[in-house]
Amino acid sequence: MKYYFATSNPGKFSEVKEKFEEAWLELEQLNEELTEIQSDSIEEIALNSAREAYEKLGKPVFVEDAGIFISSLKDFPGPYSKHSFYTIGLEGVLKLLESAEDRSARFQAVIAYRDSAKEKVFKGVCRGSIAHEARGRGGFGFDPIFLPEGSDKTFGEDVKAKSSLSHRALAAEQLINWLKQNG
Amino acid sequence: MKYYFATSNPGKFSEVKEKFEEAWLELEQLNEELTEIQSDSIEEIALNSAREAYEKLGKPVFVEDAGIFISSLKDFPGPYSKHSFYTIGLEGVLKLLESAEDRSARFQAVIAYRDSAKEKVFKGVCRGSIAHEARGRGGFGFDPIFLPEGSDKTFGEDVKAKSSLSHRALAAEQLINWLKQNG
Repeated sequence: MKYYFATSNPGKFSEVKEKFEEAWLELEQLNEELTEIQSDSIEEIALNSAREAYEKLGKPVFVEDAGIFISSLKDFPGPYSKHSFYTIGLEGVLKLLESAEDRSARFQAVIAYRDSAKEKVFKGVCRGSIAHEARGRGGFGFDPIFLPEGSDKTFGEDVKAKSSLSHRALAAEQLINWLKQNG
Repeated sequence: MKYYFATSNPGKFSEVKEKFEEAWLELEQLNEELTEIQSDSIEEIALNSAREAYEKLGKPVFVEDAGIFISSLKDFPGPYSKHSFYTIGLEGVLKLLESAEDRSARFQAVIAYRDSAKEKVFKGVCRGSIAHEARGRGGFGFDPIFLPEGSDKTFGEDVKAKSSLSHRALAAEQLINWLKQNG
C-alpha cells in the first residue's frame, strides 16, 4: 500500500518520509494546492484539507497542519504561524515577548488521514519555551527560537532532537502505528 | 429588491446598513456561519465566502472582508487581523512598532457580491498610520490606533470620520452605486 502526504513543504515531507521508511511503509509527496480554511482549531483545518485531498486523489492521503502557540500571547500565532513567520518573523515574536515573564510555548501538529473508508486525526504536542534569541540554522520556521522542555538547545541547533521529540514526529508515529494495524 | 449582508459582526452591519438607508435600499443581516479560507488576498477570501453564501441563501448577498496592513511589518496582520486583535491585541501591535520609523498602514476592505447572474468585487482603501498609543473608544478592532491620513484623531476618537472615510464605507459606496445601475 502506498500512502500520500499532501504538502508543498519539502522540510515537512522529509521529516515524515524518514519515519515511514523506518517502518517500511511507502510514502509519496502529493504537491497539490489545497484549501486551508481559517479556524482557531488546526484539527478542523487539517481535516477539511484531507477531505479535499481525498476527493481529488482517490487514494489514501493525509495532510498535516501545525503551529506554535505562545501562552502569554493567548496562543498567538497558532494556526497562522506561517503568515506570522513571513511577516513579523522571529524578530517580531522575540519583540512581543521582550518584557514577558512567561515564555512558555508549545508546538502542535495535527495529521488528518483519509481513505475510502476511514478518517482519523492524530495530534502531537511538544512543550517548551521561547529562547531569548534565535540560535541555529537547522529546521525551518520558528525552530531557531524554540527550546523543547529540558533542553538548552533550540530545534534550530539540534535537529536530531527535533526529529525524535517534535510534535510532527509524535503525530507521524501515531499515524504509522495506526496504519500498521488498520491501513 | 432586498439585499443580504452575511456577517456576524454587528458593528460592520450597522456601518453598511446606514449607507444603504441613505440610498433607500433595503438591507438585512444574514447571520450564517460561512467558511473563510486562508489566503494573503482578502479578495479571494471574500469571493469564496460570497459564493458559499449565495449557494446557501439563493438571494442577492454580499460578504465583506477587511484587514489592517502595516507596511514595515510586511503587511502584517492583513487577512488575519481579527486573530491578531484577539491574541496580541493593540498592545502587541504597538510593541512591534516601538522602534519603527515607518508607521504607515492602510485599512483595506473588500465586498464580494453575488446573485443569480452576477458576481463582483469592490475594494476600499484608507491610508494612514499607526498612532503611538490607543485613543478613543469608538469603532472596533484596530480603530483606536489607526490615524487616517491628514487627521490627528484615531478612528476610535472620531467615528464620524470613519463612517465617511473608511475603507468599508468606500467599498460599500461602490457597491451601492453599482447596485443602483445593475441590481
